[in-house]
Amino acid sequence: MAVTTLVTDDLADGKVAEVFADIRETRGSDFINNFWRALAVDADLLERTWLEIKTVMTGPGELDPLTRELIYIAVSTANGCSYCIHSHTAAARAKGMTDAMHAELLSVIGLAGKTNHLAESLQVEVDKAFIA
Amino acid sequence: MAVTTLVTDDLADGKVAEVFADIRETRGSDFINNFWRALAVDADLLERTWLEIKTVMTGPGELDPLTRELIYIAVSTANGCSYCIHSHTAAARAKGMTDAMHAELLSVIGLAGKTNHLAESLQVEVDKAFIA
Amino acid sequence: MAVTTLVTDDLADGKVAEVFADIRETRGSDFINNFWRALAVDADLLERTWLEIKTVMTGPGELDPLTRELIYIAVSTANGCSYCIHSHTAAARAKGMTDAMHAELLSVIGLAGKTNHLAESLQVEVDKAFIA
Amino acid sequence: MAVTTLVTDDLADGKVAEVFADIRETRGSDFINNFWRALAVDADLLERTWLEIKTVMTGPGELDPLTRELIYIAVSTANGCSYCIHSHTAAARAKGMTDAMHAELLSVIGLAGKTNHLAESLQVEVDKAFIA
Amino acid sequence: MAVTTLVTDDLADGKVAEVFADIRETRGSDFINNFWRALAVDADLLERTWLEIKTVMTGPGELDPLTRELIYIAVSTANGCSYCIHSHTAAARAKGMTDAMHAELLSVIGLAGKTNHLAESLQVEVDKAFIA
Amino acid sequence: MAVTTLVTDDLADGKVAEVFADIRETRGSDFINNFWRALAVDADLLERTWLEIKTVMTGPGELDPLTRELIYIAVSTANGCSYCIHSHTAAARAKGMTDAMHAELLSVIGLAGKTNHLAESLQVEVDKAFIA
Repeated sequence: MAVTTLVTDDLADGKVAEVFADIRETRGSDFINNFWRALAVDADLLERTWLEIKTVMTGPGELDPLTRELIYIAVSTANGCSYCIHSHTAAARAKGMTDAMHAELLSVIGLAGKTNHLAESLQVEVDKAFIA
Repeated sequence: MAVTTLVTDDLADGKVAEVFADIRETRGSDFINNFWRALAVDADLLERTWLEIKTVMTGPGELDPLTRELIYIAVSTANGCSYCIHSHTAAARAKGMTDAMHAELLSVIGLAGKTNHLAESLQVEVDKAFIA
Repeated sequence: MAVTTLVTDDLADGKVAEVFADIRETRGSDFINNFWRALAVDADLLERTWLEIKTVMTGPGELDPLTRELIYIAVSTANGCSYCIHSHTAAARAKGMTDAMHAELLSVIGLAGKTNHLAESLQVEVDKAFIA
Repeated sequence: MAVTTLVTDDLADGKVAEVFADIRETRGSDFINNFWRALAVDADLLERTWLEIKTVMTGPGELDPLTRELIYIAVSTANGCSYCIHSHTAAARAKGMTDAMHAELLSVIGLAGKTNHLAESLQVEVDKAFIA
Repeated sequence: MAVTTLVTDDLADGKVAEVFADIRETRGSDFINNFWRALAVDADLLERTWLEIKTVMTGPGELDPLTRELIYIAVSTANGCSYCIHSHTAAARAKGMTDAMHAELLSVIGLAGKTNHLAESLQVEVDKAFIA
Repeated sequence: MAVTTLVTDDLADGKVAEVFADIRETRGSDFINNFWRALAVDADLLERTWLEIKTVMTGPGELDPLTRELIYIAVSTANGCSYCIHSHTAAARAKGMTDAMHAELLSVIGLAGKTNHLAESLQVEVDKAFIA
């Protein structure tokens, strides 16, 4: 359970209402997920975070939106953020992630988790070739 | 400094020598980086890990090899594995990552790090829409 | 669900009963939260941990008790400890944390999460100015 | 060593030069630390990150700037970000952190690290009292 | 809730069915826990992971199987993997972990969590004696 | 480099000198490693931490001292604490860890790192069998 009140639509006004409206318009959906309703306890934090998500995840760039979602899931997994894994796995599927792509994502995440632990435990020194 | 001896070529024999040879052939390069030389203190662990890397990072699949490297860097960053960040940023560049792509990768990783912390600190509950 | 039995009052005796009594007296409340009931499977671990919490979180010092709670929440968030985030957010509120302070805490935690990931991913070298 | 080029002053132009100028003016110092020089490989990421730091760490609020630095160090420690621990311990000292305050900060961080691990390992369930 | 379908016995065929059969035979139990049913969305990932678990956790070696489980719980705790803590605490008990041993395990894990945070926050430099 | 001064023997007095003497007597060695010299900036924190280490790592119990070191290394690896990995790998060797045991330790740590990431990324639900 969230440690703050979730801001429902009837409690949203001013900047919060504006951000909620922009989320709905940007996504073409009426649904506002709990993350935004919890963040809305601080209108500035809500706005700042939403604008960053909108820019970074959906703005123009060389990595396609689905690839960005895969990267996001990878970070969220290593950080153990259950909410973020759920919401961005759903987002990745909505952007075209197939079961086969999901399985490959899992394989890379699992492998990186393993080799990260091995390299740390061995305290392997960075090769000069990777620095120069 | 690694907490184990690095296995140099003249110390490598049997299974270790075979794996080193396969690494060289697969990569088309004579260079063996420190991670493999440290893992080589256990021939079975070395072989198992190398075969998994070879399969997962370079085998056929729907995610192209560069995308796999980006995912790998994302996990390694969240886990704070300095060695892995260095080696796989180099690998990603070798596979075509441009400066612009690197900057986008950083933007997504930084954003995920931020929102992971916000969602955790707020203990946001997973929306039913992400489960059903 | 806890992986151990929670020690209820009627099962508490000896050192466990003494620690439970001290928790109640120190806090001026009859409530013993689950963390202590789970730790009580080992009386020495329970006692050692309680004495450390009592000293560090409520003893005399230059950081006021509320600031200590904010620091505690920050660590617990980065470690993703759901139980600790819940219990110490409640403790911080009991010690005077307002909604505005909570929002600022979240802003700093989120920002640190982001810049930690950026600095790690870039492997930024520590400036000499920060060492001398 | 950073995995990107550090942007020196003579390479900084346009938006990067503007942000560097603002950092100098805001801090009243000519020193630009490596984090900003590394981030400068992407002018937008640099600007976005700097504006967030400036707002969150030095803007008006109910938590004083030193308390914000202590929270920042706490997160950076749990995330193991060596660069961030160095730079923000220096910042905290510049804002008045005494040795005694540092020792108390360490005591709380160490304690939280311990109890986070205990609560996780025991999988203690959140008490209803912390939710209602 | 898992973000993928769990593969039930009637959906398992080919390689998945073979791995499920080997899990049952190796453990001498009909029970297949959710981890394997979730991983089964990719037969190769399932097989690779199972063979590694079987080799590493139950194969011949100098560390007895219970010690391996304690190490596994330690890693899972630091990574905050709730599922893994539950499943491997159960496995450790099945292999003979007593309440007293569990309490000692908790004490070491808690202590390491604390000193890890202290050493990180202080950025203690590795002594030459630990390197030579 | 440590963010605090290391307390050398000629600066150690009172409680700090007593703890240093106890470390030397307990270990039968004149060597005081950097961790204690850094912690010594706060005599109480130093004393509290040393007494806990002494009790937990070397006191009587059912897990032998070497097993405790292996668990310690496992936690330190997952937390990415370079200092702790170095110092406790040295301690484990001093207590009898062979190369073969080290290789098995690495295999379990690497495997746990991998399966932790897989279970998190899949958000596998805890089986009832592990709770009841």
